[in-house]
Amino acid sequence: MQSLQQENKDGGESGIQPAFLTEYEGTSILAKYHFPVAEGKLAATESEAVSFARELSYPVVMKLMSPDIIHKSDAGCVLLNIRSDEEAKTAFDTLYLNAARYKPSADIHGVLVQRMFPKGLELIVGVKRDPVFGHMITVGAGGVLVELLHDFSTALVPVTRREAEEMLHQLKIYPLLNGYRGAEILDQEAVIQLILQLNDLCIQMEEISELDLNPVFVYEQGVRITDVRILMETKEAPKSLRITTASQLDAMFNPRSIAVVGASSNIKKNGGRLVHYLLKHGYTGKLYPVNPGSDEIMGHPCFPDISSIPDEVDLACLIVRADLTPALLEECARKGVKAAIIYSSGFAEIGEQGRLLQEQVLAAAEKGGIRLCGPNSIGIASPNKKIYTAFGMALQTDKPLPGNIGFVSQSGAMGSSLLSRAWEQGVGFSRWISVGNEADMTIPDFIKFLVNDPDTSVISCFIEGIQNGRSFLEAAQKAKEARKPLIVYKTGRSTEGQRAVQSHTGAIAGNDQAYKTAFKKSSVIQVENVGELIDVSKAFMQIKSPRGRRMGIVTASGGACSVVADECSLQHLEVPVLSQETQRVLSESIPPFGAVQNPVDVTAELLSKPEMFKQVLQAVSADPSIDAIIVMLTTSADPIASVVAKAIVEVRNDTDKPIVVGRLGADFLAPQALEYFHQHNVPIYVTPDRVVKVMKYLVDYGEMLDK
Amino acid sequence: MQSLQQENKDGGESGIQPAFLTEYEGTSILAKYHFPVAEGKLAATESEAVSFARELSYPVVMKLMSPDIIHKSDAGCVLLNIRSDEEAKTAFDTLYLNAARYKPSADIHGVLVQRMFPKGLELIVGVKRDPVFGHMITVGAGGVLVELLHDFSTALVPVTRREAEEMLHQLKIYPLLNGYRGAEILDQEAVIQLILQLNDLCIQMEEISELDLNPVFVYEQGVRITDVRILMETKEAPKSLRITTASQLDAMFNPRSIAVVGASSNIKKNGGRLVHYLLKHGYTGKLYPVNPGSDEIMGHPCFPDISSIPDEVDLACLIVRADLTPALLEECARKGVKAAIIYSSGFAEIGEQGRLLQEQVLAAAEKGGIRLCGPNSIGIASPNKKIYTAFGMALQTDKPLPGNIGFVSQSGAMGSSLLSRAWEQGVGFSRWISVGNEADMTIPDFIKFLVNDPDTSVISCFIEGIQNGRSFLEAAQKAKEARKPLIVYKTGRSTEGQRAVQSHTGAIAGNDQAYKTAFKKSSVIQVENVGELIDVSKAFMQIKSPRGRRMGIVTASGGACSVVADECSLQHLEVPVLSQETQRVLSESIPPFGAVQNPVDVTAELLSKPEMFKQVLQAVSADPSIDAIIVMLTTSADPIASVVAKAIVEVRNDTDKPIVVGRLGADFLAPQALEYFHQHNVPIYVTPDRVVKVMKYLVDYGEMLDK
Repeated sequence: MQSLQQENKDGGESGIQPAFLTEYEGTSILAKYHFPVAEGKLAATESEAVSFARELSYPVVMKLMSPDIIHKSDAGCVLLNIRSDEEAKTAFDTLYLNAARYKPSADIHGVLVQRMFPKGLELIVGVKRDPVFGHMITVGAGGVLVELLHDFSTALVPVTRREAEEMLHQLKIYPLLNGYRGAEILDQEAVIQLILQLNDLCIQMEEISELDLNPVFVYEQGVRITDVRILMETKEAPKSLRITTASQLDAMFNPRSIAVVGASSNIKKNGGRLVHYLLKHGYTGKLYPVNPGSDEIMGHPCFPDISSIPDEVDLACLIVRADLTPALLEECARKGVKAAIIYSSGFAEIGEQGRLLQEQVLAAAEKGGIRLCGPNSIGIASPNKKIYTAFGMALQTDKPLPGNIGFVSQSGAMGSSLLSRAWEQGVGFSRWISVGNEADMTIPDFIKFLVNDPDTSVISCFIEGIQNGRSFLEAAQKAKEARKPLIVYKTGRSTEGQRAVQSHTGAIAGNDQAYKTAFKKSSVIQVENVGELIDVSKAFMQIKSPRGRRMGIVTASGGACSVVADECSLQHLEVPVLSQETQRVLSESIPPFGAVQNPVDVTAELLSKPEMFKQVLQAVSADPSIDAIIVMLTTSADPIASVVAKAIVEVRNDTDKPIVVGRLGADFLAPQALEYFHQHNVPIYVTPDRVVKVMKYLVDYGEMLDK
Repeated sequence: MQSLQQENKDGGESGIQPAFLTEYEGTSILAKYHFPVAEGKLAATESEAVSFARELSYPVVMKLMSPDIIHKSDAGCVLLNIRSDEEAKTAFDTLYLNAARYKPSADIHGVLVQRMFPKGLELIVGVKRDPVFGHMITVGAGGVLVELLHDFSTALVPVTRREAEEMLHQLKIYPLLNGYRGAEILDQEAVIQLILQLNDLCIQMEEISELDLNPVFVYEQGVRITDVRILMETKEAPKSLRITTASQLDAMFNPRSIAVVGASSNIKKNGGRLVHYLLKHGYTGKLYPVNPGSDEIMGHPCFPDISSIPDEVDLACLIVRADLTPALLEECARKGVKAAIIYSSGFAEIGEQGRLLQEQVLAAAEKGGIRLCGPNSIGIASPNKKIYTAFGMALQTDKPLPGNIGFVSQSGAMGSSLLSRAWEQGVGFSRWISVGNEADMTIPDFIKFLVNDPDTSVISCFIEGIQNGRSFLEAAQKAKEARKPLIVYKTGRSTEGQRAVQSHTGAIAGNDQAYKTAFKKSSVIQVENVGELIDVSKAFMQIKSPRGRRMGIVTASGGACSVVADECSLQHLEVPVLSQETQRVLSESIPPFGAVQNPVDVTAELLSKPEMFKQVLQAVSADPSIDAIIVMLTTSADPIASVVAKAIVEVRNDTDKPIVVGRLGADFLAPQALEYFHQHNVPIYVTPDRVVKVMKYLVDYGEMLDK
């Protein structure tokens, strides 16, 4: 949007690609593929214009065609409602005059004369080819409002019929298509067909880079495309992907023997911390420090080079100067090493010279049959296996918790911070992977590994950018089939959009939107901030998704009821009135000044009758109008808090409706209750917004799986 | 919106007030006040309609007038573009037919014949009288799209010219008024005048309950109101407010002597915990337990009644059966007690009977010159004074921290939970007030007290609903004048809107919007969730507001840079490129693969050269293109983390640009650094979204104060 305005402002259009098509050219292509475009002819002279106008019959529209004038309306190069020969002549001249004024140097192809169609509901339908995920189709509120209202929806090619339908339903202006306030119902089927036609066109014409149909008029019967803008641009072929063998993955993730090249006795150095953490956290395989300057490191004999190690080596950890790594990989290959983690920095992240070095590294690895993690990785940790080939500060901990979350991070520092915070909260991990520069193995490769990893049941990712969209979608599909939730935080929103775009579609649906669309298409749970990565991962570790979005809310405070109901409303979760029968049962436990309809407020009577909490939870969970329960605790202290905790765990064990628990009161009030929750795998969230948000993700995931 | 759709769906309009005006009546009122309404006449017969149409000159619009048909278009009771006598006759009959079909029983006043105006940009301009804050004016995208687009802005009466201008600027469709994409600039001044005319009308006609002008056509010259809908309803006079004396407040908040009526030796009882907490946390005044059944409670002689206390009593704490309280207050009055806190429940919160009892309590207090907190309060705590007249579980703590935050909560449980959490985070309070049912003193009264309280510099509120909007606005104004930030979390959004509304304005701008508008008008910082109440209060305790929204971001990780920049973009904070000079200075410390433009990434080199952090921070803070700094730390551990902490504190002390600090890595990595931050009053936030959000509130507040 920025760039588009920019381009308008200075009136010049110097950034246009030579492959920008005029409306006439674009319309001709679409006509060939039987799109409902407005008929039209290209007039080179005034008299031709008049003759075409008569042929089409008045009124007509006339538009000046120039590849140098994209925004024709802004340039005065579109004239509507021309009703006579006289008007047609004047229009022809006016268009040439306006073009000359707007851009004297413009290359003019002639004047397009089109039938004038009656106004219908205006939509924009468009395409943008995303560098990562390929063609994305957009439909939205059209006409002049496109960029003001930002009312649009998107889908990646290939778009199914169902997705096309959903695209319409997601629009804020959808009611206008569907007989809003007594108006006629418009031809939604024709819009859906148009989307599917575009889908086919994108598959056939890879070189479409941006395409706007704006406005498309939608009528009670049919649709009509009244303006076309197409940018063609050839695309680089994607890098071919390497095949990974099981033994390579096994060497990387479950190595029986590890060589640390660049090992050190100094734990201030990365090579020292790596060995230290491996030993400190109980690695049981064989460890071979390699450093020509030492005989022994932390009690282990040290070798001058890999070749000297008198044993097989599964995994090589390279923590040496960047320029030494290609030769080292050759040596690894000779030794039969199957996998390596390269920690060294000084590769693609520092610029062109590093990029060339990284290519050498990849070439050496490919030649030697070695799969790589990195370079510029801070390593891999596998708490369940006690293998810590990483030097992140998180490993300072004395309690690295095993668990079933597999975590993949493109940022070493963020990944390591999140690991440390999660451990501090008692959340455990099966695998923790810092992918570094992804010279060889990329995020999708690691996700595919985690899908097959028996220790992992939830996959969590911190992503800055994906290299190969198709590979990511495949990995996500595998995760979905394996019923392993794939939770993603994606950063880099604010730096996108620096590439100039020529179309409205390009302006409203950028790269960030492509990620969102891809994530949605592949049932990825996209969280909104890094804190949610932990919040949501720990929920999916323990709690199944509910069958629907109807929440029962149970608290001991009217204030908490109100806050949780607000948060549910914000997250589009429903809070239905409980059945008469449930309300009757609740009334037996809850005093009259409490609330039994939903949200349920058991009131401070809980303090004198804590055993009522179980009856209340049971009644709410048994209600057929409820799909899941949100419990929000406030200041209950031990021992009452422990009675409540026990009630929650017992009811949780007896029902197939998920229960998510919040507790706003400080930890010091109820250490026993919190310990009980922890022992029974009940994740606890502090604030109502977080507990409700987690429930929303559980609900969304359930809905995605159902589709 | 819900209720409006409901009403449409069942076609009936049974909820209409008798005071609903027809368009003709409404137009007549507006015409009297010189609003730019469409001229029109009310025709009772076909021939009258024709004669009026000729008078006005064709084309005309004809509309059926019935107080029973509000949504005329939906009922087919509006016919446009009538061009001849013949068409006028037909139209007259059609309107009667359509009305009969839509609602056979409708009372029909006749047919309004109006000049037909050319279409302009369609706005809705409307009024809703909010039960709390009075008249609120709305302007938005008009016509049929009002409820689909939700593009509107609001202001409370009295609306200033500046506010009226801002209302227009806030619209998403504002560019359409301002010459969007080469179109003509429309008459914004005429829209502003219309808003100000409505403002004057509201002041003169208190009984306007809802009013829609929709659409209002905006032209290059002037505006024209083409439809008018007005609902009149008389309004209850507000309760008159009591005057509070300084000695009453002093008795309530700084009592030299306290009588606890209903004191107990059993700390499982509220009356036991109250005495226990007073003693445990070191109350230094005189304490008189009152209970006819005991001689002594927790080492203090116990009295059978208040009258028997051989001393003056400043504050009475009543923790007895609800029905005993009126008589007790009479006794308190005789004793000269000036203030009482009523903890007992069983008042307005349990229904009609309790409400009557509450009125008796208020009457007794008014008669006796006693100011009340409560009933149904859990009390007041003043850590700076060591006075804890409260029984909330938060007081279980051994470390109730004093501070300068004054906290007012309408929910005892939520307030107590938040207090305990904040204390656990090391955040201290000057006053903590549970307002209970607000029979006498209300939230605005307590805010006014805190504005004058020398111990308090930040005021923080958990609000469910305000009784008297005007009083709240006054209190907020006083807080603003005293430069004490007033931070509010307001719940109850999801339960609003149950009252039926008859207008589009009512549907889009409900009670929640009135709160938002009032908060904005009075420079209240409205936070979005309860967690933010603590986050933001602790920020305002220590950090001043920046002069603008241009952020310098400093991290030691590319991932953190990206995430913080994203969050800034989300919060509309700018991240400008640093000056060449600053970049040059930064390049001296930061390696080439770091980032010096902004966000600044010092890279993992920080680990080997931690002293560079201070140079970097100094350079960024000295850059004139930066208003404030966000530091996001990741996994730095002690001792490096402590070097960084020291750098932050030193630079903070040297600059007038605020610095807000996030730290994602776990606490166990850097306990010394965290302690250092705490000692030097640097609040720390865990996740990037929270640190950036806090900065956004600081910036917003600075902007509000500047206005």
